[in-house]
Amino acid sequence: MLSNIQIVLVQTFHPGNIGAAARAMKTMGLSRLILVAPRRFPDDEATAMAAGATDVLENARVVDTLDEAVGECVSVIGASARLRNMPLPHFCEPDEMAEHVMTQAASAPVALVFGRERFGLTNEEIQCCTHQMTLPAAPDYPILNLAQAVQVCAHELFTVWRKNPENQYSAPAPVQSTRPTQQQLQAFLQHLDHTLEDAGFHNQPHSRTLERLHAFYIRAQPSKKELSLLRGMLSAFSTPRDNGPSNK
Amino acid sequence: MLSNIQIVLVQTFHPGNIGAAARAMKTMGLSRLILVAPRRFPDDEATAMAAGATDVLENARVVDTLDEAVGECVSVIGASARLRNMPLPHFCEPDEMAEHVMTQAASAPVALVFGRERFGLTNEEIQCCTHQMTLPAAPDYPILNLAQAVQVCAHELFTVWRKNPENQYSAPAPVQSTRPTQQQLQAFLQHLDHTLEDAGFHNQPHSRTLERLHAFYIRAQPSKKELSLLRGMLSAFSTPRDNGPSNK
Repeated sequence: MLSNIQIVLVQTFHPGNIGAAARAMKTMGLSRLILVAPRRFPDDEATAMAAGATDVLENARVVDTLDEAVGECVSVIGASARLRNMPLPHFCEPDEMAEHVMTQAASAPVALVFGRERFGLTNEEIQCCTHQMTLPAAPDYPILNLAQAVQVCAHELFTVWRKNPENQYSAPAPVQSTRPTQQQLQAFLQHLDHTLEDAGFHNQPHSRTLERLHAFYIRAQPSKKELSLLRGMLSAFSTPRDNGPSNK
Repeated sequence: MLSNIQIVLVQTFHPGNIGAAARAMKTMGLSRLILVAPRRFPDDEATAMAAGATDVLENARVVDTLDEAVGECVSVIGASARLRNMPLPHFCEPDEMAEHVMTQAASAPVALVFGRERFGLTNEEIQCCTHQMTLPAAPDYPILNLAQAVQVCAHELFTVWRKNPENQYSAPAPVQSTRPTQQQLQAFLQHLDHTLEDAGFHNQPHSRTLERLHAFYIRAQPSKKELSLLRGMLSAFSTPRDNGPSNK
């Protein structure tokens, strides 16, 4: 359950990152934000960056220490840019982290913990965790902005959530155009052939030009509407122009 | 090839979003940024938000229109929060978009196009695209910040890239601890049994307490080092305390 997932930000320096993280959470169905000793909060910058997610900020819990934040959790994933020399189980693949979190979160609270912008999490804070996680990134510059890391993790969690049919997520459906019948399509292709012939288009014997044009139009899968537009186009090509002699 | 992928931002209003997008790109191995008529660029806010990715900003191309930006591309994916009533092929799954983009980008430039913060892309601009894409998001609030959308897309592209063995991406390896032999592990478990017995721990007949404790320690997969620490712990429990009578 997404509602069992807590995003914990430890000593965030920039209020804008808190707001951006709140927005990232809300776009991915998360709502429980916990701030451990934020430098400045509440703050106008956080509110501005939260955009339509100010409710997440308003409902945020503010605590003094990390163990207060995660005491009720059955799994605590500490996100860090660098690996620690501490043998906690380690997720290097965000989708594996997400599968684990969503499985646990079905029945109890789970926390994802993000550290300070510059310094990440202290070793003591890693000791409050059950797992570590690193986001795969380009070796030249693997340091994602804090709120961006929250967005990527939230996206991975939401992906697992929506792919679970129990959650009945339905994507907004793209416009489905109606398809013509084979008869309608073939009639168009014949119309195309006649229009080309009337226009003096010479189809070399043994050439496959018409076949290839036909295959193109078939592969393009025109809708009924599009077929109608294409037939209109052919009609325009068939009609002699008003000003000028016929080319036939 | 990641270097064939162009990120195109159309008429971005907030310079901070340009900088944050540049950073998102660099963390995921992307470098080619094109700005179509940005409201303010260059700008200190962009530079600040770019953090370690100011080179991406410095190398950004600035053009007046979208078709100038994508003229050389063989595939142009227009990202929008809303579906358009325009029958372009549509990606609703970011990983499918990423597979498509990476396949095309092996041999020719491909563009991902992101529109204005408030208004997205115009219908004319969608006409410069070969595909549309929507990021799945929570129905209550599906509008990701522009740079966050870039980060999620870039993350998906980088995921496809690194999973391709030809690209020889190697994740930083977590600390591998050496494992003890079965003999060492069993010796510890016997030591545990003896220490418990000496401490007056009564194992009920037919109870499976010792078995369960053994199973716990086996499942925990202690490293050699950890086993040594645990044996030290048992020794401490075996040694009578200096101040006070033995409990035996």
